[in-house]
Amino acid sequence: MATGGAPFDALSSLDPETFAGESRAVINFLADYYRDVDTYPVQPQDLPGCLRALLPDAPPENGEPIDVILEEVRTHIVPALTHWQSPKFFGYFPMNASTAGFAGEMLSAGLNIVPFMRVASPAATELESAVVDWMGKLMGLPDRFLFSGGGGGGVLHGSTCEAVVCTLAAARDRALSRLGHEGILRLVVYASDQSHCTFQKGARIVGITRSNFRVIPTSASSGYGLTSDSVRDAVEADVASGLVPLYLCATVGTTGLGAVDPVRDLGELARRHSMWLHVDAAYAGSALICPEFQHHIDGAELADSVSMNPHKWFLTNMDCCCLWVASPAALTSALSTNPEYLSNVTDGGAGAGVVDYKDWQIALSRPFRAMKLWVVLRRYGGAGMRAYVRRHVEMAKWFEQELKADGRFEVVAPTRFSLVTFRLRPGHEGDGDAVDGLNRRLLVAMNASGRAFMTHFVVDGKFVIRMAVGGAMTEMRHVQDTWELVREKAEEVGALP
Amino acid sequence: MATGGAPFDALSSLDPETFAGESRAVINFLADYYRDVDTYPVQPQDLPGCLRALLPDAPPENGEPIDVILEEVRTHIVPALTHWQSPKFFGYFPMNASTAGFAGEMLSAGLNIVPFMRVASPAATELESAVVDWMGKLMGLPDRFLFSGGGGGGVLHGSTCEAVVCTLAAARDRALSRLGHEGILRLVVYASDQSHCTFQKGARIVGITRSNFRVIPTSASSGYGLTSDSVRDAVEADVASGLVPLYLCATVGTTGLGAVDPVRDLGELARRHSMWLHVDAAYAGSALICPEFQHHIDGAELADSVSMNPHKWFLTNMDCCCLWVASPAALTSALSTNPEYLSNVTDGGAGAGVVDYKDWQIALSRPFRAMKLWVVLRRYGGAGMRAYVRRHVEMAKWFEQELKADGRFEVVAPTRFSLVTFRLRPGHEGDGDAVDGLNRRLLVAMNASGRAFMTHFVVDGKFVIRMAVGGAMTEMRHVQDTWELVREKAEEVGALP
Repeated sequence: MATGGAPFDALSSLDPETFAGESRAVINFLADYYRDVDTYPVQPQDLPGCLRALLPDAPPENGEPIDVILEEVRTHIVPALTHWQSPKFFGYFPMNASTAGFAGEMLSAGLNIVPFMRVASPAATELESAVVDWMGKLMGLPDRFLFSGGGGGGVLHGSTCEAVVCTLAAARDRALSRLGHEGILRLVVYASDQSHCTFQKGARIVGITRSNFRVIPTSASSGYGLTSDSVRDAVEADVASGLVPLYLCATVGTTGLGAVDPVRDLGELARRHSMWLHVDAAYAGSALICPEFQHHIDGAELADSVSMNPHKWFLTNMDCCCLWVASPAALTSALSTNPEYLSNVTDGGAGAGVVDYKDWQIALSRPFRAMKLWVVLRRYGGAGMRAYVRRHVEMAKWFEQELKADGRFEVVAPTRFSLVTFRLRPGHEGDGDAVDGLNRRLLVAMNASGRAFMTHFVVDGKFVIRMAVGGAMTEMRHVQDTWELVREKAEEVGALP
Repeated sequence: MATGGAPFDALSSLDPETFAGESRAVINFLADYYRDVDTYPVQPQDLPGCLRALLPDAPPENGEPIDVILEEVRTHIVPALTHWQSPKFFGYFPMNASTAGFAGEMLSAGLNIVPFMRVASPAATELESAVVDWMGKLMGLPDRFLFSGGGGGGVLHGSTCEAVVCTLAAARDRALSRLGHEGILRLVVYASDQSHCTFQKGARIVGITRSNFRVIPTSASSGYGLTSDSVRDAVEADVASGLVPLYLCATVGTTGLGAVDPVRDLGELARRHSMWLHVDAAYAGSALICPEFQHHIDGAELADSVSMNPHKWFLTNMDCCCLWVASPAALTSALSTNPEYLSNVTDGGAGAGVVDYKDWQIALSRPFRAMKLWVVLRRYGGAGMRAYVRRHVEMAKWFEQELKADGRFEVVAPTRFSLVTFRLRPGHEGDGDAVDGLNRRLLVAMNASGRAFMTHFVVDGKFVIRMAVGGAMTEMRHVQDTWELVREKAEEVGALP
């Protein structure tokens, strides 16, 4: 029996019949999971260590059948998962799975090639170069970031964090080529109080002094976007003290509130001070495929790099991050290595113009991510993806309207994409702490119900609930049910009527 | 028709029937690929740009059926791939796929959770902590690297390069807490001329001055392993010039030749100079599950960190790297972040002792890699994996014996695991350059035949051919056929009879 407990044979691990039989068992398992996932509590209510206690201290000496393993996934692991694919998951940001994203991941994992250099699998490098150009065009990126445009190009990383480390290293080495290595002590990185923590972490990783990371405050008056005045003040103060502005982050769609920094203003400022400008559109980059959102990256031609994550809201299973740079040479001069065991003995004449992606990223080894994004784009098409994004934006707008129509709630930041940020308002009797406690209890009560999952943020000292719409299976009825849940739990925790 | 061209519906991308139907089509495609892969030339003989020319400049506006997409993979992409899963692929290092590794990857990609923190999916964090302990025990690692041992623990990264960057950042920040940030200019990293280039790249990424990376020479007399004398000389010279030894890399199974550095000697030296010792067993770590190989990591209790890649020779599809550290606090103090949007509002009392893996790696987002390694260990068991590794070691030994029995060849470094390094000997007439040219032509001729794929290395100025056995589908007959190929092509390129 194909899915049974045949004893392990070292030479049959890729036997086509065994492969097909056991893989079909997993496919059936996952189809059942998708059928049932909206009946599970979105977040499990377990205690730390509960699964660990069920696991033996050592692996089995003898192999076990796939059916036994799948049954254990069903009974022990699934109940202790947070279900990111539940249509009622509205926490953090969406992390889309889809049939096409999964198909692409299967092809990548099944072929299991390692395209670190073009010669290590030519089709993979060419597909990657093509597919990042496709994505860039869909998003309306300036030609300078495209291979087919003005000398730039893109690469697929696993995460924005990796893209940030690589661009920081590129910017740093470009600056140190003028300053000498001692200059590393004087380099300064700028972000807003709404920027993702990965910029702070990335700056530490590449050796920037912790005290040279500037967190520029934002406020409600600019919708929590940076203002170029505030950045300029910080930059000029640093220059006056002998420091060297290195890198500025502009975010289109911040994690906490979905805020947007003014790319053109920041780009002009960055140019004046020879800073590297990175545009982080990890989440909202997916919306940029719709023309009505493309004004949010107006001025991107002034940036040095742009990134977005198809694994968030673009139906591309984990993990996949697009990074585009205007100057590939800046990236590769920081990240290239040429050991003998990778030099190409059979292809000597073809070096010029060849993209070797190992020099565009941290790692040498890399999966065939281009396959995944290519299958998604082929299967769903530009029109399909725009329709997909717009449906979520409509759902979020509906939710925002309901909040506004109900006098007990306030919307904290404008809903620009599909993230709604809200809270119960202070009543005439309540002080700030009491209202924060009320909102905190509201979030806990909703998540404990298992009927939805949201996360929170704190801005201007206020506790804010985040409802991030964008799950692959999320339909209008799930958003409507969640609005019912919000009202029900608001009453339970004692919101004023 | 499940696999047909139904127009894309934004809300049906995870419809269970569509998912199952289209996924089965991909499984059938891959089963056919495994059935046929040994009939394909291992490396394609295309020219750069050949696939790119077939790809349109933009993605389709309307979605296309999965069958059309798979047919294009078959006709356009597969012929331009290097087939890493071919049983005749002997280049670089093996990158194993397997039915169980694929099943685990499918479960990970299908559930598509993001276990950056324990609370973001408790089962995933607990499974990861358990499975890295399992691997550590199989390899005979000292207890201090295990969660269940003496306060250490492990994490699954995507690549050794990432593990190296993280441990370098941890070592650097530990040192800078004494020295102040200016000390970064004085830190020195040590590796051998056989160490992987990732150490040099990683040191640059974390801000170590390029001139403070020491490449210690090795020689045939120590089998191309480091000697602690040579490292000590370099360290003492640096200390005498006011520099600060930071980090030393010991490799068990180098990329070029499979050499082994003396872990205990280097560990004692590292301790004396307060250096971080990392043991890189990326490839040979798989062999360490067999007791007969465990003497190669004798002294590992003196190391600060150890890494190995199950995605190489352990039937775990890309990507998966185990990193173990003796002091998780050293790692997390360099890599932790605690933004408000990740603070845990529902689980306030459970912080102590909870592992949040985002603080053990570069990225915030991360796939559920533990599922993959867990399925491999369950499906094949410790005994199955040892049998698997030993078969490849036997094949490599046979190949080495044949080379030795044929007077025209020399084996360059001892075959300790499953990597054989060899070359045609100089004839009485030939000088070094001529012999190098002969070996180079031999490698090109073998690879051009499509009947096998190997790569090369250069040591002591000599061109060396690398035959890395370890493919999941490689059987003895493939190694025997490859020996025939070597002899045939050696005659063709003019080796002396």
